[in-house]
Amino acid sequence: MQAEFIERLVSIFATLPTIGRKTARRLVYYILKQDESFVKQFAEALLDLKQKVSYCPECFNYTDVTPCVICSSSKRDSSIICVVSDPNDVVAIEKTNDFHGKYHVLHGVLNPLEGIDANDLKIKELIARLNNNVKEVILAINPSIEGEVTIQYLAKIMKQLDVNVSRIANGIPVGASIEYTDEATLARALSARVVLK
Amino acid sequence: MQAEFIERLVSIFATLPTIGRKTARRLVYYILKQDESFVKQFAEALLDLKQKVSYCPECFNYTDVTPCVICSSSKRDSSIICVVSDPNDVVAIEKTNDFHGKYHVLHGVLNPLEGIDANDLKIKELIARLNNNVKEVILAINPSIEGEVTIQYLAKIMKQLDVNVSRIANGIPVGASIEYTDEATLARALSARVVLK
Repeated sequence: MQAEFIERLVSIFATLPTIGRKTARRLVYYILKQDESFVKQFAEALLDLKQKVSYCPECFNYTDVTPCVICSSSKRDSSIICVVSDPNDVVAIEKTNDFHGKYHVLHGVLNPLEGIDANDLKIKELIARLNNNVKEVILAINPSIEGEVTIQYLAKIMKQLDVNVSRIANGIPVGASIEYTDEATLARALSARVVLK
Repeated sequence: MQAEFIERLVSIFATLPTIGRKTARRLVYYILKQDESFVKQFAEALLDLKQKVSYCPECFNYTDVTPCVICSSSKRDSSIICVVSDPNDVVAIEKTNDFHGKYHVLHGVLNPLEGIDANDLKIKELIARLNNNVKEVILAINPSIEGEVTIQYLAKIMKQLDVNVSRIANGIPVGASIEYTDEATLARALSARVVLK
């Protein structure tokens, strides 16, 4: 009933996460109102994304140069590797300007229910990087149930290796109130209390 | 820091309505995980949208055939024209399966504050369609302040023409409760009460 070319793009947008069919239609009508140059840039950016972006062979983050800018930087400390589940987490940690080591992206967490086991993640590749130069591995993985399983699994297989393994702290977020913090977080914050004196 | 080609597509997605920068990044990572064929189809659909979709010369809805399927259908009653502000509204009304006339899309409503006047809308084109065959014009325009102004403006310029003009009813939505209905809607529902006996 509506133009077929509209429906086709609506259907594609609707397959993306967080976008329902109504939002998809709104986006398509917005795009219809833009210049042709906008659409060309959009299409080109999509094609370039798949053609020019790939995994860094060292840290497995997405990159368009090999190795990625972080892995090839002489300013980054190769003796500390921060392990994350997703490339998004690298972006978040880089924003803190507080970490100067390197990263390793697992591309997921262990999830037996969904059939995701160690071979589906970049775990072998992480272990292969742990030579004598690496002094510490920081696990910066979401404290979900699957995340916890992944953290325990990694800690176990790294036990016999000569490397320090840590995990980022759980606790009350800065600026949050104790009253509204969930019990699990509060329990962790209590048991991980920091001695002041 | 992240791949330039990722940032470029994130920026483009973030210009779309309802999509913030975090969601944009999530969409790009989702797309990175898809097959190359998905990206090709997406890019093609974008280019096709702008190249093959245009205004129907009669009703000004978006179409990829000229005139559009509704305007060229012999099953639609040419004597009733439903005037809407946006193509989205045509989709909504068609879903009711209750309207068998034709449409006219204004592409906006009058908005003096944003400098949108009658010449920016397809109003001249609407008046040009009102020949002797057209018996009724139904104004299906959102009852916002700008919508009301547009409804009053259209009603005024059609006053001297030999055509019936109506607007769709305001009232309590089906399934809603009187208790939670806003005063403006309730006042309209009362004054537009329907005699039963």
